[in-house]
Amino acid sequence: MKNILIINGPNINLTGKREPGIYGNISYDDFFSQLAIIYNNVRITTVQTNHEGKIIDLIHEYGFECDGIIINAGGYTHTSVAIRDAIAAVKAPVIEVHISNIYAREEFRHKSMLSPVCKGTICGFGMNSYKLAIEALLLE
Amino acid sequence: MKNILIINGPNINLTGKREPGIYGNISYDDFFSQLAIIYNNVRITTVQTNHEGKIIDLIHEYGFECDGIIINAGGYTHTSVAIRDAIAAVKAPVIEVHISNIYAREEFRHKSMLSPVCKGTICGFGMNSYKLAIEALLLE
Amino acid sequence: MKNILIINGPNINLTGKREPGIYGNISYDDFFSQLAIIYNNVRITTVQTNHEGKIIDLIHEYGFECDGIIINAGGYTHTSVAIRDAIAAVKAPVIEVHISNIYAREEFRHKSMLSPVCKGTICGFGMNSYKLAIEALLLE
Amino acid sequence: MKNILIINGPNINLTGKREPGIYGNISYDDFFSQLAIIYNNVRITTVQTNHEGKIIDLIHEYGFECDGIIINAGGYTHTSVAIRDAIAAVKAPVIEVHISNIYAREEFRHKSMLSPVCKGTICGFGMNSYKLAIEALLLE
Amino acid sequence: MKNILIINGPNINLTGKREPGIYGNISYDDFFSQLAIIYNNVRITTVQTNHEGKIIDLIHEYGFECDGIIINAGGYTHTSVAIRDAIAAVKAPVIEVHISNIYAREEFRHKSMLSPVCKGTICGFGMNSYKLAIEALLLE
Amino acid sequence: MKNILIINGPNINLTGKREPGIYGNISYDDFFSQLAIIYNNVRITTVQTNHEGKIIDLIHEYGFECDGIIINAGGYTHTSVAIRDAIAAVKAPVIEVHISNIYAREEFRHKSMLSPVCKGTICGFGMNSYKLAIEALLLE
Amino acid sequence: MKNILIINGPNINLTGKREPGIYGNISYDDFFSQLAIIYNNVRITTVQTNHEGKIIDLIHEYGFECDGIIINAGGYTHTSVAIRDAIAAVKAPVIEVHISNIYAREEFRHKSMLSPVCKGTICGFGMNSYKLAIEALLLE
Amino acid sequence: MKNILIINGPNINLTGKREPGIYGNISYDDFFSQLAIIYNNVRITTVQTNHEGKIIDLIHEYGFECDGIIINAGGYTHTSVAIRDAIAAVKAPVIEVHISNIYAREEFRHKSMLSPVCKGTICGFGMNSYKLAIEALLLE
Amino acid sequence: MKNILIINGPNINLTGKREPGIYGNISYDDFFSQLAIIYNNVRITTVQTNHEGKIIDLIHEYGFECDGIIINAGGYTHTSVAIRDAIAAVKAPVIEVHISNIYAREEFRHKSMLSPVCKGTICGFGMNSYKLAIEALLLE
Amino acid sequence: MKNILIINGPNINLTGKREPGIYGNISYDDFFSQLAIIYNNVRITTVQTNHEGKIIDLIHEYGFECDGIIINAGGYTHTSVAIRDAIAAVKAPVIEVHISNIYAREEFRHKSMLSPVCKGTICGFGMNSYKLAIEALLLE
Amino acid sequence: MKNILIINGPNINLTGKREPGIYGNISYDDFFSQLAIIYNNVRITTVQTNHEGKIIDLIHEYGFECDGIIINAGGYTHTSVAIRDAIAAVKAPVIEVHISNIYAREEFRHKSMLSPVCKGTICGFGMNSYKLAIEALLLE
Amino acid sequence: MKNILIINGPNINLTGKREPGIYGNISYDDFFSQLAIIYNNVRITTVQTNHEGKIIDLIHEYGFECDGIIINAGGYTHTSVAIRDAIAAVKAPVIEVHISNIYAREEFRHKSMLSPVCKGTICGFGMNSYKLAIEALLLE
Repeated sequence: MKNILIINGPNINLTGKREPGIYGNISYDDFFSQLAIIYNNVRITTVQTNHEGKIIDLIHEYGFECDGIIINAGGYTHTSVAIRDAIAAVKAPVIEVHISNIYAREEFRHKSMLSPVCKGTICGFGMNSYKLAIEALLLE
Repeated sequence: MKNILIINGPNINLTGKREPGIYGNISYDDFFSQLAIIYNNVRITTVQTNHEGKIIDLIHEYGFECDGIIINAGGYTHTSVAIRDAIAAVKAPVIEVHISNIYAREEFRHKSMLSPVCKGTICGFGMNSYKLAIEALLLE
Repeated sequence: MKNILIINGPNINLTGKREPGIYGNISYDDFFSQLAIIYNNVRITTVQTNHEGKIIDLIHEYGFECDGIIINAGGYTHTSVAIRDAIAAVKAPVIEVHISNIYAREEFRHKSMLSPVCKGTICGFGMNSYKLAIEALLLE
Repeated sequence: MKNILIINGPNINLTGKREPGIYGNISYDDFFSQLAIIYNNVRITTVQTNHEGKIIDLIHEYGFECDGIIINAGGYTHTSVAIRDAIAAVKAPVIEVHISNIYAREEFRHKSMLSPVCKGTICGFGMNSYKLAIEALLLE
Repeated sequence: MKNILIINGPNINLTGKREPGIYGNISYDDFFSQLAIIYNNVRITTVQTNHEGKIIDLIHEYGFECDGIIINAGGYTHTSVAIRDAIAAVKAPVIEVHISNIYAREEFRHKSMLSPVCKGTICGFGMNSYKLAIEALLLE
Repeated sequence: MKNILIINGPNINLTGKREPGIYGNISYDDFFSQLAIIYNNVRITTVQTNHEGKIIDLIHEYGFECDGIIINAGGYTHTSVAIRDAIAAVKAPVIEVHISNIYAREEFRHKSMLSPVCKGTICGFGMNSYKLAIEALLLE
Repeated sequence: MKNILIINGPNINLTGKREPGIYGNISYDDFFSQLAIIYNNVRITTVQTNHEGKIIDLIHEYGFECDGIIINAGGYTHTSVAIRDAIAAVKAPVIEVHISNIYAREEFRHKSMLSPVCKGTICGFGMNSYKLAIEALLLE
Repeated sequence: MKNILIINGPNINLTGKREPGIYGNISYDDFFSQLAIIYNNVRITTVQTNHEGKIIDLIHEYGFECDGIIINAGGYTHTSVAIRDAIAAVKAPVIEVHISNIYAREEFRHKSMLSPVCKGTICGFGMNSYKLAIEALLLE
Repeated sequence: MKNILIINGPNINLTGKREPGIYGNISYDDFFSQLAIIYNNVRITTVQTNHEGKIIDLIHEYGFECDGIIINAGGYTHTSVAIRDAIAAVKAPVIEVHISNIYAREEFRHKSMLSPVCKGTICGFGMNSYKLAIEALLLE
Repeated sequence: MKNILIINGPNINLTGKREPGIYGNISYDDFFSQLAIIYNNVRITTVQTNHEGKIIDLIHEYGFECDGIIINAGGYTHTSVAIRDAIAAVKAPVIEVHISNIYAREEFRHKSMLSPVCKGTICGFGMNSYKLAIEALLLE
Repeated sequence: MKNILIINGPNINLTGKREPGIYGNISYDDFFSQLAIIYNNVRITTVQTNHEGKIIDLIHEYGFECDGIIINAGGYTHTSVAIRDAIAAVKAPVIEVHISNIYAREEFRHKSMLSPVCKGTICGFGMNSYKLAIEALLLE
Repeated sequence: MKNILIINGPNINLTGKREPGIYGNISYDDFFSQLAIIYNNVRITTVQTNHEGKIIDLIHEYGFECDGIIINAGGYTHTSVAIRDAIAAVKAPVIEVHISNIYAREEFRHKSMLSPVCKGTICGFGMNSYKLAIEALLLE
């Protein structure tokens, strides 16, 4: 049974509450509860934090042992060299996801510091981006 | 039964033949034959062309009628305003895929002209990127 | 009687069908039929193609013999050095037209590779841009 | 009978006197006298000023009442946020004209601050640019 | 009685202790004690933290309930997409303040990531910037 | 009794008349009449002009004698080195105000040439920006 | 006897009054009175104005008749396409002068829009820059 | 006997007909006829096309079998990622040639997308550039 | 006896575990144990944290009392205005160290936000960079 | 009697021999012979060298003793940090001269590394630039 | 019999000794001895120097008399305005050569300051680049 | 006994004589005499030159035989591709030193062309930077 860590960065917990035109209506808690039920053949750990340092701590803690990490680093995506270095340092494959199509938004969201060190990127499919990322890890 | 068009742009036909470190070993023909067998519940049309204008012709021809287009525009990804306009003009959702992680390669491959007008982007999972794109269309 | 070639590049054939807020409601075919009737004192040839190479072929074919070329190169406007070189090489005056006001749209549409080698530019008047271009050629 | 204001900005009064290779031989006064005669079905007011503030005063004064403004803002074209704001604030459609092909000249003349808020742009047809702009207003 | 949250980001606690030429002589604690006394008709909560994640936590906690947030994000002002997203996500109006005139300092301090999503910005009035921000919230 | 000069640059006189979504509904004249009544303990002189040179003349005339200048330089904010030099040359503190949040608008409005030489900047509070600026001068 | 026009742009009239560390102590009026006395073999006309349009008016008025123009366009130096066009249009040689060394000041003062169309540039010699410019015209 | 493919891209067929100051007087057909006669110890295939896709088709067709490709991609030189990818994918060494000295022309012609993946570059020797490229292949 | 604080930022704790080609083989714990033994004439406090805010807290806590701080801010080096401000605010000299030669790595690692406010920088000597930094503090 | 050193950098010795349209017809030797005769009240030493290091040697040798240095650093003007540092290090005032108007030539000639550390700059007056520079030193 | 000067700039003398992967195995001396033997119908002078000034001296000395110069300016290629000016000043045609494909190396090697003033450029053919350059001169 | 070469580039010989606020008071000669005495267990050769070419000659001469080179290339640090290539070509480890903190000075001093090919960099410790560099070589 595969172990997967899902890291959700800053403001992702507000999904369903903020800007539904961009992020959709389903609430954060509802979505991840359902996800665990659908993928009951996978051991999924989900963590949300607004702290950049906490994200790095998590990557260190899980990244040498779990079978894959799915990360939505929110606003840190575009600036964090430190998270990038953490991803590059660990053994587990890391998949970057985004709920919205970041390339159709503001210019400063077009560049991800994380993409070059991730296994792959999935973006723009709403909360389904997480499902596709799990599928991607299962296809390995 | 859903109708899906897969457009493969310039040089994609060489997959399996060129730079296996980047693009993998499976040949272009083998992969797409298998894909049709796996997804036998979907009507998949696959076209490869090296001509930018032909890609636009195809989007016009299918884009008002099929249920989704999956496009790997190869080198045109980074420069073609014309393909972008074609995607923006049609009704079918268009999903952009890339075999390699374009963000881990040369700087000029980091920017896609197509991403902002596509439904979503999947990149870096090898030939599995196509499978995930079909999954994404089926999740709609 | 003057000979004029009108070249319409990629996606222009969808006019009337795509984004009416930007391109207006009149269909491509209707407009150019009417144009031929209004300007029955001019011999107008109208061609639409999505292929960059075909546009160059046309400029070579007509550019040493006709009295003027009106070109709406669509998405190729912003990137094509090859079309620019073709325009610079021929004898006929070439007028660049755009249906929409390209300067009021995305940044990448603000720069035309063709303008510096054209006789003049007319943009933003909807399908009337073509009429004004014909007037301009008749004023010569 | 339509009311049209033509605003000519800095140095346009020297037309016929300066750089005939770029601006042609006909004198400023002669051209605008003839224009009034040709378009005797239109009420044309022509003003020339070297003062940016005066151009804004004129747009305020006429822009809520006349049927169209034709502006050749000369050197202010490329830098004036203030004239741009004035154009955006008034009701009359404003057409930008240039005598020379500004895109074939120095780099700093390629960008117009005014184009994005004008109805359309006509450039490169010598003094005929003004005639085409009047035609454009009559086509509305 | 209005509820206002004042968030002070990294290093603001050193005010009065560091670079008095830029930040003034009054100590951080003294100023905010006095502020509470002057504005005794407002319920003011003041928090200082050096942690980016903590700032986001605070915006989430107060931003759906209080009547306004005044934020001096210190060095995070210029880089934090994550704080920007938090501000954009909540209901309360957020006012950005700076003690010094950031536009008269180093180039990298001229750009604020937060300004575009704040209600307004007040900068350069020393500790009075906070008073003016409270006034601004009271004027609403 | 303090003497304050308020300089309103190009197009500010149209407030209430143009783009109410950005600039609000109250008319220019009404607002400044009321302002004089509210702050009857201050001697306020208000001038509006569309001429950059006139703004400089005013700064020279008042800037060595009055107690403060409040300036909304409109479109000249982003380009005028000459107004900047005038502000830097005089003794009175100068406060820059903007009705709208200029940082949430077009890129070219994000940079102010005046901010570095002003005492402080207040922007985004509608016509209240002027009130806050007077408060700021009274706090000195 | 040669006719020379000296045009002083915005804020130059404050010389002696503003920032003596940069501009020196001698007052504007004193300097130009003395200059007329020293060069009594030349007919010197000196005008100061804060208005860009007025500078252009002056160049038009004198530029086809006098023997040379010396211009210190102050803050307009760095932005004015309109003054540049006026200089390029007239027959008299134009010499650009600056009191301070503009290259040792802020970045935005390093680029002059006027230099490419002037005969030559003299900068950094305090008020002596004007004397050297007169010498330069006499050497012709 | 070596097999060499010479690919001439857009507008090269006009050589001798367009801009003789830049491209020389000899006609396209004459030159390549003579070339075949001079190098009768080499099997030379020469193709001209204005279509980017056709160039890629040719590289695919010959690039795994011939002994060398000489390419003058004309205007596609500066923008085509797709041709670059084709060159990188095949086994034959590819030499880039240009008739004119592209570095002495417009800025946008200074950057070649193809040079980094070619064996070498020869430019500026008129039609002799082709001869030198053949010599270079024979020296291998 | 001198008091020195060594701050190690994000991912430095993985040294010896990640990318030995760049960071070497010795483990983080081993190195700093040995360092304390070698420099037994100095009181060295070593802290590692992945949290940007924690780094700032540490600088505040020690920076007014210890004799020197040695900081390897890892990925925060290139983006953190907040750490920069903290370093600039305290009294102790701060020395920036890097294990690898950051100038021989990716472009985004070439710029340090911290260097301008540090006493000096030592980079590229592997773990010896820390020894040289201690030597540098002892030389004071 | 004042001591002045004139340093002429690379290629200046070819004056009169190269590009007379830009540099004039008078030969290098003739001009400097005449100059010594005209200014017989000044002790002028003239050196020409193509070596950057030699220019620095000369500035070191004379710069602490002579009354002024006039430098035309030719092509080193635009790139040499080393000459700049030498000028900044010595006591004598240094005046930068150019024969041609460097601002009317290629973009890369518009920026001088030397101007910010020179007393002043004189450019565009042909060989008279040297005379004006001597006048400037005599006016001190 | 033609006279040709070959100038080899900094570090070229180390060829065969440094980075054979980039520059090949043949030693500098061996190659140029052989070259003289092969081209015994040409008078070839070969000079190597690490001094920029010496390169300019050589161009002056030979450039008005020999039949052609072949230059590999090594690292000066990318920065030297002074060598460029020397090449532009002399009569002999100058051909730029590079051993390695500079466009496939670091970004800063992609731009040559010399190319625009040379007759032509040959790069990427190893030491054969010199042979091709001689052929090019013989073809003239 | 180790052999170390210290290369001091342009203007370093003026240390103690120029700008003591930046470079300190100790004279160049005194410092290097003392250094030789302190490190009497190392054979130190110290050379100063203002010539870029001479620096390259020295690196060639010593770089294949000595045990390490310490280089302070002064103003050439920021521009010299040629010195960079020389460092990359030799076997001895090269350490870059700077007396002042180059990152706290002008923008153009922030980038070193040499750092990427040096073993390491030490900067900002005054003349102690040389001592630390020797320590670094002894630690090897």
